[in-house]
Amino acid sequence: MVTRLLRPPWVEWTRGYDRATLTRDAVAAVIVTLMLIPQSLAYAALAGLPPQVGLYASIAPLLLYAALGSSRVLAVGPVAVVSLMTATAIGDLAASGSAAYGTLAITLAFLSGVLLLLMGLLRLGFLANFLSHPVISGFITASALLIAAGQLKVILGIQTGGHNFFELALGLVRHAEDIHALTAALGLGTVAFLFWARRGAKPLLLRLGLGPRLADGLAKAAPVAGIAVTALLTWSGQWQDQGVRIVGTVPQGLPPFTLPSWDLSLWQQLAMPALLISLVGFVESVSVGQTLAAKRRQRIVPDRELVALGASNLGAALSGGFPVTGGFARSVVNFDAGAQTPAAGIFTAVGILLAALLLTPALYYVPQATLAATIVVAVLSLVDLGILRSTWAYSRADFAAVMSTLLVTLAAGVEAGLMAGVGMSLVLYLHRTSRPHIAEVGLVPGTEHFRNVLRHSVRVCPQVASLRVDESLYFANARVLEDRVNALVADRPQLKHVVLQCSAINDIDASALESLEAIDHRLRDAGLRLHLSEVKGPVMDRLQRTGFLPHLSGQVYLSHFQAMADLAPEITQDLTRPATIV
Amino acid sequence: MVTRLLRPPWVEWTRGYDRATLTRDAVAAVIVTLMLIPQSLAYAALAGLPPQVGLYASIAPLLLYAALGSSRVLAVGPVAVVSLMTATAIGDLAASGSAAYGTLAITLAFLSGVLLLLMGLLRLGFLANFLSHPVISGFITASALLIAAGQLKVILGIQTGGHNFFELALGLVRHAEDIHALTAALGLGTVAFLFWARRGAKPLLLRLGLGPRLADGLAKAAPVAGIAVTALLTWSGQWQDQGVRIVGTVPQGLPPFTLPSWDLSLWQQLAMPALLISLVGFVESVSVGQTLAAKRRQRIVPDRELVALGASNLGAALSGGFPVTGGFARSVVNFDAGAQTPAAGIFTAVGILLAALLLTPALYYVPQATLAATIVVAVLSLVDLGILRSTWAYSRADFAAVMSTLLVTLAAGVEAGLMAGVGMSLVLYLHRTSRPHIAEVGLVPGTEHFRNVLRHSVRVCPQVASLRVDESLYFANARVLEDRVNALVADRPQLKHVVLQCSAINDIDASALESLEAIDHRLRDAGLRLHLSEVKGPVMDRLQRTGFLPHLSGQVYLSHFQAMADLAPEITQDLTRPATIV
Repeated sequence: MVTRLLRPPWVEWTRGYDRATLTRDAVAAVIVTLMLIPQSLAYAALAGLPPQVGLYASIAPLLLYAALGSSRVLAVGPVAVVSLMTATAIGDLAASGSAAYGTLAITLAFLSGVLLLLMGLLRLGFLANFLSHPVISGFITASALLIAAGQLKVILGIQTGGHNFFELALGLVRHAEDIHALTAALGLGTVAFLFWARRGAKPLLLRLGLGPRLADGLAKAAPVAGIAVTALLTWSGQWQDQGVRIVGTVPQGLPPFTLPSWDLSLWQQLAMPALLISLVGFVESVSVGQTLAAKRRQRIVPDRELVALGASNLGAALSGGFPVTGGFARSVVNFDAGAQTPAAGIFTAVGILLAALLLTPALYYVPQATLAATIVVAVLSLVDLGILRSTWAYSRADFAAVMSTLLVTLAAGVEAGLMAGVGMSLVLYLHRTSRPHIAEVGLVPGTEHFRNVLRHSVRVCPQVASLRVDESLYFANARVLEDRVNALVADRPQLKHVVLQCSAINDIDASALESLEAIDHRLRDAGLRLHLSEVKGPVMDRLQRTGFLPHLSGQVYLSHFQAMADLAPEITQDLTRPATIV
Repeated sequence: MVTRLLRPPWVEWTRGYDRATLTRDAVAAVIVTLMLIPQSLAYAALAGLPPQVGLYASIAPLLLYAALGSSRVLAVGPVAVVSLMTATAIGDLAASGSAAYGTLAITLAFLSGVLLLLMGLLRLGFLANFLSHPVISGFITASALLIAAGQLKVILGIQTGGHNFFELALGLVRHAEDIHALTAALGLGTVAFLFWARRGAKPLLLRLGLGPRLADGLAKAAPVAGIAVTALLTWSGQWQDQGVRIVGTVPQGLPPFTLPSWDLSLWQQLAMPALLISLVGFVESVSVGQTLAAKRRQRIVPDRELVALGASNLGAALSGGFPVTGGFARSVVNFDAGAQTPAAGIFTAVGILLAALLLTPALYYVPQATLAATIVVAVLSLVDLGILRSTWAYSRADFAAVMSTLLVTLAAGVEAGLMAGVGMSLVLYLHRTSRPHIAEVGLVPGTEHFRNVLRHSVRVCPQVASLRVDESLYFANARVLEDRVNALVADRPQLKHVVLQCSAINDIDASALESLEAIDHRLRDAGLRLHLSEVKGPVMDRLQRTGFLPHLSGQVYLSHFQAMADLAPEITQDLTRPATIV
């Protein structure tokens, strides 16, 4: 594992790199570049930053990820949710568009990079597991709705604000009469075109006689076509004079070398947002990477991903960018376009660099509404309200976690939403484990297997009670077992032995040991004996370091069948006898 | 269970109440009354309240608990730790000794009573389980040290302050030259006498020819003797004129009828302290009650205890008292003195009432140092530093919980300490469950039982991998199983089947279901099949509500043995063949 982390990944993929692989990587890079240019501009705008920053954030991160990452096809750069989180984190600290705002974005990327690197080196990747699937789903859906509501404002040319989704939505309705017709026509036209292009563009291009690969590639570049057409229209009509907001002058040239702020009190303020951005970015990136890797029997190394994403964010911070992560849409496009190795990422970086050097004057007339349309179409595919139905059917606890994340994110923003979701998941989990399922079990006739007496036809013996606790014993549930055993002993005067089948007990902490000692003590006082069976290795190791086992009133049996063969031979000796139905 | 809660407990114990029982209850009541008088005065002083309040808080609560509680011998009243918590909660809000301070104490008792009643009626008693044994031990030990340090000041006649244990201890050392010799002689003399009385008084009284029951009872009343002797000495020397602080005038009469403050902003401020006092009081009370009940094969009903303690605190609030709970020392004394039924509690209440009516003028000359000595001797028996050694040996996580509770309580007070302890326990528990033990298992020869291949000589089949996950699958650990299965498939090219033995999986949440689907999907893509065995009833019920089982690439087997008999018959068909050692 350690050698895996230390060995540079290119050792593997450069071996046997041939012309065919090069061609496939290059084709994929061209398609991803065409897709990334409008996305980068749009996500920079979403984060409250000038458009060229989106291009800068797509160069160094792509190169660093290609050098260090364990996925062969992941495309790193600005993504919608992280851009929104960036705007939320720094929006109150400086005016959008100011130099101070740019430095804040760079500092946030820097801190996020440092945190990701630290998590990778200290193997703290498990922290991301606390963002459960319901929480992530609810969070992504709510973020997408928040982003869409905010961008709809730009598409319609309305000047309104709002601190949360409901205020934003209400503002749109209230200011409906302020809609700027020309802007709305451009914006909504682009939205319609992009939705159509998803399904309609490729068949049309095929019918026009293009080859399937080329048709596919061009269809993916539909946002570029949308931008080019609306920019041409705006230029020809000089619509900026009629109130259509345009991108304007975009500086031309290489990404600048930048440094974060070294103000420690600012670091304190940004630490929590940076941590949340890191965790969300990591979870999103790894899940995309794993899905794509599995399709080609490759593997993602999560700790290496942390290091690679950390380096990518540091790269973004040093080259005038903002927080980045592995994006879902672009990685899937890269994969589908046939990218074979991280070289595709390097070629894409070169493509974006060329755009930053040469293409920016052409962006002058691009309407802001067109960029907003690109974002709305991209984020609406992230909305997954089906998760509400599926978690409702599966488990109320998971539903509650999705629902609270969704609602708190919409009402109080991304950070509060994430924290509410994680908090809710933890509380519900603890509540569940604090009320363990305890089954009384009996022998399934003809086998050596024991199951719940309430669910199966099994054999039992009135002198011996077999209890299976379906949870590790720890402080929050230790007393529940005490209560259950007390009740059992009070209800069955003929009882002589209590056997705990420990197959589901994965841990016994000090509180639970105390409870077991109390149970054993009370059973002994009442003339009964306490036995254990199927105690797991790690649990047994720990019990052996205490005085519990030598003082135990009964025995510890390897298997529950052996326990019953010893304590109640009448139910085990003749396995062919018909079952006593309880 | 519900009928149990509704049926008044006296229905049971009044049946067959005879003269012999009456005598035993009355004798116990006399002994407990003698013990309670000095304790009540001392704990009121510890809470910052006038001495008579301690007597008031020992009357109504005793009567209400006798009417409602499920323990036959628990003695309810002021206790050391709860008195300290009371002083901490209200100490900053009013001057000790003022009327406002008394109202605050009454309001705290009222809120605590309401919370306990609510917890009882809503069956929220499980909340108390989150105060784990290590946290409670660390907390009680630290509180006892805090109390002892504070009282040592009174015993030595030093005027010093301090916001935490370390400041208090430092203050005592710095002001060593201010020790008031006469006060210190009285205080330290009482401490020495009380320590001696614990072991030496009964044998001495026996040698003087007293009967064993009388000797035992008188030995228990040693604090009363200490108070009487020091009060007589102070009176005869008129030492109050030489700077010995005395109790002074204590109002004579019935407990007053009092009402809490109805100021809602005050309630908000006191809500958290009241909750912590309720939980600590409940845990202490129930553990004493259960220990004593088990000795006589009786049973405590925790939900009923909540109701009874809630009513006791409301009673304290309405009769000029302060927060109360079931005390350890007095309950043990009550039990040892032969109390048979709650009637002993009623007789004790009458005894304390007589003291409040008749005895208070006699308390005028009692030195405050003597009361402090009573407290120090009582709380030092609560200090249990052995818990540090035993938890260190058993589990580092439990040790960390004790240690952090102990240190934070000493350094930052009772509330911070409790919360730090609970927080620490939860974080450590989550960390542990997020890294589950996953064992590969094989067949124990000659049985139908499967154990870890690394610990036992078992039979395995190279085409079939059997994994036993020793933890419920939930969001924090779901991805760990994915990683393990991915690694297994990558390492063993001949693998055809993966069987998950689910005997230790007590729950599968939505995130884990997602992971299982991903695992199944990837195995199927790689030409393998995923099977489950020994899925528990509640887990199976939930899985059946999803599309997972119909799409599963493999089977669900009742037992793991049946799974192996089907998938790898060569290792199960001849159970008498010698084991293949792996």
